[in-house]
Amino acid sequence: MKRTTEKNLMVFTGRAHPQLASEVAAELGTTLVPTSAYEFANSEIYVRYEESVRGCDAFVIQSHTAPVNEWIMEHLIMVDALKRASAKRITVVLPFYGYARQDKKHRGREPISARLMADLFKTAGADRLIAVDLHADQIQGFFDGPVDHLMALPILADYVREKYGEQQLAVVSPDAGRIKVAERWSARLGGVPLAFIHKTRDIDRPNETVANRVVGQVTGRMCVLVDDMIDTGGTIVKAAEALMKDGAAGVIIAATHAILSDPAVDRLKNSPAAEIVVTNTLPLAPEHEFDKLTCLSIAPLISRAIKEVFEDGSVTSMFDGHA
Amino acid sequence: MKRTTEKNLMVFTGRAHPQLASEVAAELGTTLVPTSAYEFANSEIYVRYEESVRGCDAFVIQSHTAPVNEWIMEHLIMVDALKRASAKRITVVLPFYGYARQDKKHRGREPISARLMADLFKTAGADRLIAVDLHADQIQGFFDGPVDHLMALPILADYVREKYGEQQLAVVSPDAGRIKVAERWSARLGGVPLAFIHKTRDIDRPNETVANRVVGQVTGRMCVLVDDMIDTGGTIVKAAEALMKDGAAGVIIAATHAILSDPAVDRLKNSPAAEIVVTNTLPLAPEHEFDKLTCLSIAPLISRAIKEVFEDGSVTSMFDGHA
Amino acid sequence: MKRTTEKNLMVFTGRAHPQLASEVAAELGTTLVPTSAYEFANSEIYVRYEESVRGCDAFVIQSHTAPVNEWIMEHLIMVDALKRASAKRITVVLPFYGYARQDKKHRGREPISARLMADLFKTAGADRLIAVDLHADQIQGFFDGPVDHLMALPILADYVREKYGEQQLAVVSPDAGRIKVAERWSARLGGVPLAFIHKTRDIDRPNETVANRVVGQVTGRMCVLVDDMIDTGGTIVKAAEALMKDGAAGVIIAATHAILSDPAVDRLKNSPAAEIVVTNTLPLAPEHEFDKLTCLSIAPLISRAIKEVFEDGSVTSMFDGHA
Amino acid sequence: MKRTTEKNLMVFTGRAHPQLASEVAAELGTTLVPTSAYEFANSEIYVRYEESVRGCDAFVIQSHTAPVNEWIMEHLIMVDALKRASAKRITVVLPFYGYARQDKKHRGREPISARLMADLFKTAGADRLIAVDLHADQIQGFFDGPVDHLMALPILADYVREKYGEQQLAVVSPDAGRIKVAERWSARLGGVPLAFIHKTRDIDRPNETVANRVVGQVTGRMCVLVDDMIDTGGTIVKAAEALMKDGAAGVIIAATHAILSDPAVDRLKNSPAAEIVVTNTLPLAPEHEFDKLTCLSIAPLISRAIKEVFEDGSVTSMFDGHA
Amino acid sequence: MKRTTEKNLMVFTGRAHPQLASEVAAELGTTLVPTSAYEFANSEIYVRYEESVRGCDAFVIQSHTAPVNEWIMEHLIMVDALKRASAKRITVVLPFYGYARQDKKHRGREPISARLMADLFKTAGADRLIAVDLHADQIQGFFDGPVDHLMALPILADYVREKYGEQQLAVVSPDAGRIKVAERWSARLGGVPLAFIHKTRDIDRPNETVANRVVGQVTGRMCVLVDDMIDTGGTIVKAAEALMKDGAAGVIIAATHAILSDPAVDRLKNSPAAEIVVTNTLPLAPEHEFDKLTCLSIAPLISRAIKEVFEDGSVTSMFDGHA
Amino acid sequence: MKRTTEKNLMVFTGRAHPQLASEVAAELGTTLVPTSAYEFANSEIYVRYEESVRGCDAFVIQSHTAPVNEWIMEHLIMVDALKRASAKRITVVLPFYGYARQDKKHRGREPISARLMADLFKTAGADRLIAVDLHADQIQGFFDGPVDHLMALPILADYVREKYGEQQLAVVSPDAGRIKVAERWSARLGGVPLAFIHKTRDIDRPNETVANRVVGQVTGRMCVLVDDMIDTGGTIVKAAEALMKDGAAGVIIAATHAILSDPAVDRLKNSPAAEIVVTNTLPLAPEHEFDKLTCLSIAPLISRAIKEVFEDGSVTSMFDGHA
Repeated sequence: MKRTTEKNLMVFTGRAHPQLASEVAAELGTTLVPTSAYEFANSEIYVRYEESVRGCDAFVIQSHTAPVNEWIMEHLIMVDALKRASAKRITVVLPFYGYARQDKKHRGREPISARLMADLFKTAGADRLIAVDLHADQIQGFFDGPVDHLMALPILADYVREKYGEQQLAVVSPDAGRIKVAERWSARLGGVPLAFIHKTRDIDRPNETVANRVVGQVTGRMCVLVDDMIDTGGTIVKAAEALMKDGAAGVIIAATHAILSDPAVDRLKNSPAAEIVVTNTLPLAPEHEFDKLTCLSIAPLISRAIKEVFEDGSVTSMFDGHA
Repeated sequence: MKRTTEKNLMVFTGRAHPQLASEVAAELGTTLVPTSAYEFANSEIYVRYEESVRGCDAFVIQSHTAPVNEWIMEHLIMVDALKRASAKRITVVLPFYGYARQDKKHRGREPISARLMADLFKTAGADRLIAVDLHADQIQGFFDGPVDHLMALPILADYVREKYGEQQLAVVSPDAGRIKVAERWSARLGGVPLAFIHKTRDIDRPNETVANRVVGQVTGRMCVLVDDMIDTGGTIVKAAEALMKDGAAGVIIAATHAILSDPAVDRLKNSPAAEIVVTNTLPLAPEHEFDKLTCLSIAPLISRAIKEVFEDGSVTSMFDGHA
Repeated sequence: MKRTTEKNLMVFTGRAHPQLASEVAAELGTTLVPTSAYEFANSEIYVRYEESVRGCDAFVIQSHTAPVNEWIMEHLIMVDALKRASAKRITVVLPFYGYARQDKKHRGREPISARLMADLFKTAGADRLIAVDLHADQIQGFFDGPVDHLMALPILADYVREKYGEQQLAVVSPDAGRIKVAERWSARLGGVPLAFIHKTRDIDRPNETVANRVVGQVTGRMCVLVDDMIDTGGTIVKAAEALMKDGAAGVIIAATHAILSDPAVDRLKNSPAAEIVVTNTLPLAPEHEFDKLTCLSIAPLISRAIKEVFEDGSVTSMFDGHA
Repeated sequence: MKRTTEKNLMVFTGRAHPQLASEVAAELGTTLVPTSAYEFANSEIYVRYEESVRGCDAFVIQSHTAPVNEWIMEHLIMVDALKRASAKRITVVLPFYGYARQDKKHRGREPISARLMADLFKTAGADRLIAVDLHADQIQGFFDGPVDHLMALPILADYVREKYGEQQLAVVSPDAGRIKVAERWSARLGGVPLAFIHKTRDIDRPNETVANRVVGQVTGRMCVLVDDMIDTGGTIVKAAEALMKDGAAGVIIAATHAILSDPAVDRLKNSPAAEIVVTNTLPLAPEHEFDKLTCLSIAPLISRAIKEVFEDGSVTSMFDGHA
Repeated sequence: MKRTTEKNLMVFTGRAHPQLASEVAAELGTTLVPTSAYEFANSEIYVRYEESVRGCDAFVIQSHTAPVNEWIMEHLIMVDALKRASAKRITVVLPFYGYARQDKKHRGREPISARLMADLFKTAGADRLIAVDLHADQIQGFFDGPVDHLMALPILADYVREKYGEQQLAVVSPDAGRIKVAERWSARLGGVPLAFIHKTRDIDRPNETVANRVVGQVTGRMCVLVDDMIDTGGTIVKAAEALMKDGAAGVIIAATHAILSDPAVDRLKNSPAAEIVVTNTLPLAPEHEFDKLTCLSIAPLISRAIKEVFEDGSVTSMFDGHA
Repeated sequence: MKRTTEKNLMVFTGRAHPQLASEVAAELGTTLVPTSAYEFANSEIYVRYEESVRGCDAFVIQSHTAPVNEWIMEHLIMVDALKRASAKRITVVLPFYGYARQDKKHRGREPISARLMADLFKTAGADRLIAVDLHADQIQGFFDGPVDHLMALPILADYVREKYGEQQLAVVSPDAGRIKVAERWSARLGGVPLAFIHKTRDIDRPNETVANRVVGQVTGRMCVLVDDMIDTGGTIVKAAEALMKDGAAGVIIAATHAILSDPAVDRLKNSPAAEIVVTNTLPLAPEHEFDKLTCLSIAPLISRAIKEVFEDGSVTSMFDGHA
């Protein structure tokens, strides 16, 4: 008994950020697989797929927004259910990868939670990952299998170039550890000057900074402050203030992941930044929207990556000549 | 360079139910290892041990109360941190094992979350488990390693026998699937008669039952309704009512795990049950306490098991001659 | 060099129950792959496939009848040979899953052999399992991969309904631990009453029972005694006798797996049961056949499941609306 | 809470060859751990240890005699029970390693059962192996962990040298594939000449040989025919006959493993061999004993190896200066 | 979204023996995938594929010639890069398998490097192996997956038969451990007589032999000395000399793997061997070529095996009726 | 049979950098375990331990200097031999971790060799790692087990402070990606100003840089240029030149790992740097020594870490209050 083998693309989402998943499915010309997901009275999660998934090429999208542990667990349970229901291949799609910042032991007796997450997904049954702008590139190496690492840089930088390209720009990293990213921005914006903020963090309270000093020349320039994520906004807003104090002509903030934990929105509203440009890798609550905030869609990037993966095309080529 | 090998017992707890862990440590004549654990602004959990744990025999206690996913993830992260900090052996202690009820596929395309949990703990670094009254005995087989399965039955049944032993008793299972447990109760109470409630559940909404019929003779008897856990209390309270309608002399409810999700407390208060006996495997909020509720401590059982494990004694012998 | 991928269904069997495998293959419109299998002088098993199996979708059928260990080992060796001969996917088909009853530690220092079997098949190279009426549903969770769990209930219950549906029926479980199954029978037979036999076993000799008491109303009813398997028949025959003593109108015994170890046949012949209905998941020796025994074929069920698995259809849908 | 760590040697046996295990335990000055092991009616094996084994250093002895699959499965189940009962380290002791002859694919689509056995023991929970005279040295590499490989050569060869050392000896291999072993014998007997029998086997029926030709000079010499095992005895008896036809002064047969499948005993009795020297790695049924058969005990070798392993001594040193 | 699945054959090579890989690709009618591979200043290897390899069926050819460790590491890194770049299936092709001779512990406290290599390739991501004339057949069992073991015997033996078939031949093994191979040669050459060289090696210096004695009749015969590999040539040249001294009519040397470490070429040139026949599983430096050396191509054999594997044909059938 | 457990520290080294290992052993008050290690004629490595290692706590030191692949393979083979010889615990000590720079995919279709190395050591049998100044902290997360990560910063920085602390210092990172390390130096030197060199690399040739611009104020300051390693020295020497051009008072170079591939020594000699301070994590050939080069010993740090690991002390505490 012989048959030609077919492959069948199916897109799944949990409850963390269904809008993004719907957008991705629509870009792919398909719809999300109907899925029951709810909590029992004691907060345990229940998941079941309403259609047969046997033999499918499954892409399971979940963005690890707050409550992070809730959505990661739902994500893991969805993968387990797919494995046991005989999906042929399971790709975990992570617009925002939870715990990415705990990617090393800053001090002894800490976990490396970012590695743990990679292992948990492997154990649940993930064959491969697609992720957007991981906090450190090395996190690709935490997963034992293929990882397609997508960059929002082209989307963000092209927006900035189009709107602010006429001005004298500088690219600024808010943190000594992320100047590499700023370098990529500088290259894409045509080689504009670089600077960074030298600050001291108290290692026990990573959200508080002590002092900020601008290293590099920013006087008279429109500064593009770039980061992978904005959490409480403390670091980046203090960086914006330091830049203005140092004579910058203005500040634009650009980041892929808009976590916007309290009091980020207030801080950003009141900051000297003229515009904050982010993507929708994380859901944006209506009360978190404000005038200066511009949110670009990451869905076209993710859907194109899924298409390349499904059709054995090239994800690498999506970024050729870019950075 | 030779040295005599020493082993060093250390007891850890997460933030789900620290009172129980403290009680266990006190019974063992030790104290909990000081641990930092808190959430970052976006709800990711951070954990760090304040003392060296190198080479220790670690027992990590966490009860999977609501919010379940939060505490399971903290538990996993604690295990990862212990593994990376060179603990010699890691025993995960689960007074209540989260997701134990999803121990099989009730229908197609469901997860088997109870197996998934066992695998996640293995992946994080658990060498062995200690659990109390698993929803199904087969869950022991989900973990690839030793599992010490403790039973609260002696504690609960001895309390019931002492208080109600003079009366004509019957043991009743609220559910066809758990009569095996009722049989063990019957044996321990000296061979009293058995009954069960035959009910139809709608498989899609496991918390709702449709009809209740008493199978067995309960007229004139004080019925001990036994179960492993009380969640919303719907099933057990309807069972109590059916028993009273069938002519029971009275009803006592006994269960190991007092989940008591809303509206369990109201239901139990208003039920015909004379007393509800549970243990403290799960934390009991002050607003969940009420007159008819008796809570017995499970700490002596857990601490004795830890002691036997640490000293290479016998856990089996703890239950000899019991059930 | 590109080629369209084809998949190729191949069905294999060991020597435990070749008739069933042949029937399954015939239902699928194919034949069994010619295989050499014999013992060397010292009882080691030798297996070799007579045709190329490279790239095939292999289904390896073996029913774990006595001598159980012989046939399990042959099954494992067949899987190893398929793996090393480059089969693409290996599905182990278990009409009867050996050691399923040792699915938990009844007492300390016992094995959990049902989990061990799942791990042995995984190690040998099994990608997935198909099993019929596992002793406990949780055994699905013992295997780290997809398990398709088939139920003989529709086949057996439809036969009973057709033949005895006019009479006043009751469904009876011979054992407190299996009332869940009886509930499914009750539902399928249109909601007939339930009962069970409360017996005490000596935990050291699980084949001997001590006392039997009927719990539930059976007077004047034709009782359908249901179980997953009949081994020596002691339990079920004593249950039939207890039912008759309690005033039952008659007894029908229905079970999926007819192990029929000595002296089951004599006991059943001499029992008050009017008919014993089983399936051919296990081979039935000619000397085990007798008038009251009806054996229904499980082959259509297994072959349909294999077809659904091969064609990426739905096994779940085979049981929709059933139980 | 600190304690000095102790280790506790415990010796276990299955039912295949309890005499050898008792002898080993006695040499170690201990006794076998009391163990329940029997078959259920359908031939499934049940095992339980009667004493706590928590934390012990377990040595589980089972020789894979016929029925081989029965005893291997019992061995695996014993290891599983030890693992789940918290033994600290599990050493599987294999006086005779079942399926050792299937150590490669002789033809396509065969299993490599010797590797499969190594993996099954690993999966069940074995940490390390002790084996005697493996059919091929490479089998050590099949197990992912330490293997202590014991040689009976010193015991057998010293016996031969003492009894026949005065005569003009030759060492003869019955098979082209095992001349390496004959070389070791030659060295230990002081450099006596070597020969081998060139025969053609039909690859499908490994127990039948076609023709036998002596390669090497044996005229007038007492030939020591050496092999690792005697199964049906066909090969070695034909070799003995060929040697006598070629003018040998006499023939002594020496082998570690006396499988003696039918009709080995008859063949050996009627063969020209003056003496057959074996060890008790396998049980010898009383009806298999005969005048010309000498059986030396392997127990001192195994017990010394266990002692070295337990005390972190050196097993290698047991064979220093030997071969 | 459904698509017919296609598979895409891609052939890769490292820098150890690109000529052979090119020949293999050409026989398959394709070309090697363009690959960057070079060393950084500190000798770390860098590899990158110039084309997308997503979803391909990859065959990665590397022959482990000196410097062996360099080429094995490059091979491993290539496999890792393929795995992370989403190749669908990775077949490691080993014309010469490095460390094959360390296939057992000759003495205590040695590694089993041949097993280690199998595990390293598995870890890097290899799904299956194709190898030529492994030093021991058991090495197939070291890899946890399918191994296609190709034999050069037909190529070599047919050449010898054609050229020397008219003469009175004998097949001679230079070593007691490899007479099995000589038996296969004898069978293929029509049943010619066998002999072997009995020599003593100092186990600490495996390249030096002590004494050589011919076992078997070679007088007046053209001897075909056969081995799997020629390393320094010491053993085989001494064997050739011993044969001539024993009255052989002449000597032909045949071996699959021409390692030819110094001073092999000088030894062979000056040996009494009339011709040395080898294959190009290893690269042959121009300075290693000499008149008496005949090198036959292995590329047709490897390319046919790759074709059978890719098209789900039969590799076993390639050797049917051969040995 | 009970015994008190002892642990036995044994230190091993390969041939890459035996001086360092001897120094470490001497600091520990022990000697290196005698080990045979050499190459066979075809460059395969042979290793054997001359003493029993059964039950020992093994620390295997090898620094991955050029030829890197040679020494990594020797390291892996040593671990395999220890595992098979029954070492109780195996700690791989990596003064310099080979392939650490390939810690992510810089472009598509590259390997992540640093992760591969971690997996290879795990597969060979490593239980834990000790490493010095990993190129990225995330590499700790590549290994599935405990990693003790030692920092040379206190040794190097204290030397610099003592010698140059009177001058006006600045800490400079030669690369945007490593400013984090410079921040730690700045903190340890009492908060001196930071700067970095902004350069563009051609991603295909990571050893060549295109342009260098100083970001930050260095005029009039003695600049401490810090990096984890000096390979060919191109980057760091150009950085030193850029600093002098920018008006620095002088330049000191400090780095942990002195790879010093050609032409590093010439470049450094001719550079404006006043002193180059390194450690001996890598062997320093006599011809690589020169006046301005100061080499501090890392042996006290490594030996103290081994001692803490062996005695279940704290490695974290070694760096308390430092960085």
